[in-house]
Amino acid sequence: MLPLLTRIDHVGIACRDLHHTIELYRETFGLEVMTLESNEEQGVREAMLRVGTGAAALGSGAAGSGAAGAGYVQLLEPLGPDTPVGKFLARRGEGIHHIGYGVADVSEALAAIGGTGIRLIDERPRHGSMGASIAFLHPADLGGVLTELVQFVS
Amino acid sequence: MLPLLTRIDHVGIACRDLHHTIELYRETFGLEVMTLESNEEQGVREAMLRVGTGAAALGSGAAGSGAAGAGYVQLLEPLGPDTPVGKFLARRGEGIHHIGYGVADVSEALAAIGGTGIRLIDERPRHGSMGASIAFLHPADLGGVLTELVQFVS
Repeated sequence: MLPLLTRIDHVGIACRDLHHTIELYRETFGLEVMTLESNEEQGVREAMLRVGTGAAALGSGAAGSGAAGAGYVQLLEPLGPDTPVGKFLARRGEGIHHIGYGVADVSEALAAIGGTGIRLIDERPRHGSMGASIAFLHPADLGGVLTELVQFVS
Repeated sequence: MLPLLTRIDHVGIACRDLHHTIELYRETFGLEVMTLESNEEQGVREAMLRVGTGAAALGSGAAGSGAAGAGYVQLLEPLGPDTPVGKFLARRGEGIHHIGYGVADVSEALAAIGGTGIRLIDERPRHGSMGASIAFLHPADLGGVLTELVQFVS
């Protein structure tokens, strides 16, 4: 079996105050915000902070920035308490929320992974950060790890 | 300020049964074990599973495999209930335990980060996976995220 995962795309971190946490990462590690967006469907306001430079130059645009070598810290602030991230914060407090892996084709990856018996939160891809096509897998079947698949679409 | 972090080196995942979880990652994602070791000091038995190929070829050895582009899933099974990972499992269950970032020089990074007021778990580097020099930062000062710095030593 060929590896489905091409890279660690990002680590999603739940926080109560997005701007405070952006400043914390800037002051502590020198990380800068690449994109800042709201996703009503997922109930979050989020920032993507790039870690490392990798093969993909920033100038190649968001679609290209998912190439091997670039990874992101994704800071997530919930839009309200009844959102998934809002419930996570109430239950567990601030901290690492999920991990996102790059895949070449998220539909094909979902079919392959679903075929092994892992439950899919998303049966088909949906819209994620920076224009990516994404899908989540169920943490209960993956040792408690909420896992996201990310395909950058150019 | 220059970014201190050169890459997402690994995501550390706490599990109850290392071999079961290795099989889960192999069957679901096709990830293979690169190294398997015990670290008595940290109280864990662990496996490093490589994600993606990146710039570093496997043939260049463990020291070289930390170059940009290669990332790892680090599966951690506690050696006992009174270890840090054992306590984490008792308190929170299986799941993501920490994130490890690559740095060029872990001593310099500790000095810079400590200077911003972040508490250091390790005041000086210690021995980590695959011969790396590592240090942990305190999650209470980093939005609940246990954060590790990793410098590969050739």
